[in-house]
Amino acid sequence: MTKQLIDIIEERHSVRKYDLNFKISKEEIEEMLKEATLAPSSSNLQAWRFIIFQDQQAKKELREIANKQEQVETASAVIAVLGDKEMYKSVEKVYGSAHEAGLMDEANMKRLIESTNNTYPKASEEIRKNIATFDAGLVSMQLMLIAKARGYDTVPMGGFDKVKFAEKYHVPERFFPIVLISLGKAAAPAFQTTRLPIADVILEYI
Amino acid sequence: MTKQLIDIIEERHSVRKYDLNFKISKEEIEEMLKEATLAPSSSNLQAWRFIIFQDQQAKKELREIANKQEQVETASAVIAVLGDKEMYKSVEKVYGSAHEAGLMDEANMKRLIESTNNTYPKASEEIRKNIATFDAGLVSMQLMLIAKARGYDTVPMGGFDKVKFAEKYHVPERFFPIVLISLGKAAAPAFQTTRLPIADVILEYI
Repeated sequence: MTKQLIDIIEERHSVRKYDLNFKISKEEIEEMLKEATLAPSSSNLQAWRFIIFQDQQAKKELREIANKQEQVETASAVIAVLGDKEMYKSVEKVYGSAHEAGLMDEANMKRLIESTNNTYPKASEEIRKNIATFDAGLVSMQLMLIAKARGYDTVPMGGFDKVKFAEKYHVPERFFPIVLISLGKAAAPAFQTTRLPIADVILEYI
Repeated sequence: MTKQLIDIIEERHSVRKYDLNFKISKEEIEEMLKEATLAPSSSNLQAWRFIIFQDQQAKKELREIANKQEQVETASAVIAVLGDKEMYKSVEKVYGSAHEAGLMDEANMKRLIESTNNTYPKASEEIRKNIATFDAGLVSMQLMLIAKARGYDTVPMGGFDKVKFAEKYHVPERFFPIVLISLGKAAAPAFQTTRLPIADVILEYI
């Protein structure tokens, strides 16, 4: 049965109880990430990176720096989403591959590489981190929907010790951890939640 | 025909040429936002807000502070996504409505309100802005997919003058602009883009 997008959106809930014995292959996780990274990003610089935790002992250790949340240990996998604060370093690869694929002529490629190198490095680190953080949200949402469409569940977790994470997993200075997403088969239904009335979140019509 | 999620994801591209004469009703935009705001958010505090631009003159003026990008003026609507850096102020409404809907008992509601009020206001403004920025990415991605599923196109734009935006539209100090999303009917196909190889964005398997 083909589900409509809206069904997947409505059925996705944050799941915190997982079937510990259910495994998702590394290959399938990669496939899901390939699909998720079709998300747009600032200048297509794809300022997102991933660390995939599948080893049982590793998940147990990760739990210790993630507010001891059960799902970090019991989900099939935990995907750490990191941001790239030096995303402009990917510019030649990104636009070079578009040129090679015949999607961009050489003049355009050169112009875009130059303009990226003239702007991004001059922007403050704070601005670059904001860009990467927003783009990480885009890719994370696609990942959670893709998981749901395949019958899996997720929960995004911002509450973990980011300093300890960077230390423990030797995250290069260029990258910074943003969120952990557990991925697995639900063992119990998620809590249902409510949303603010739409009139509360639309500030103005202009 | 019911499209699969993956088709929608693959068909979504950033569109910069729009049919100026195509209108999307305010009611349909609200409906799309209602669906998009089913996205998860930190403690379900929904730190996202929207300003909807549909008036032609208003879009023309907005274009002036958005790097003069054509799509700001020619798309049917532009949806400004803002973050709420004082998201904890929604806590009683959020958990109160969950309690009223029978989804949360009173003790749990009180405990969650208390813990939110004990943690979020103590976090730095930078941390709270990061949370709102990530969550804005989640809701924006759902919005863009929902639009695509309905036959519309979008492009997210981070490049606009956020200070001038906040001034011109009298954005309360509590909120901050993050991104503009144009929404409309494509008048020309989007540029195709490439993605970094998945091996480049997966830093490690643990």
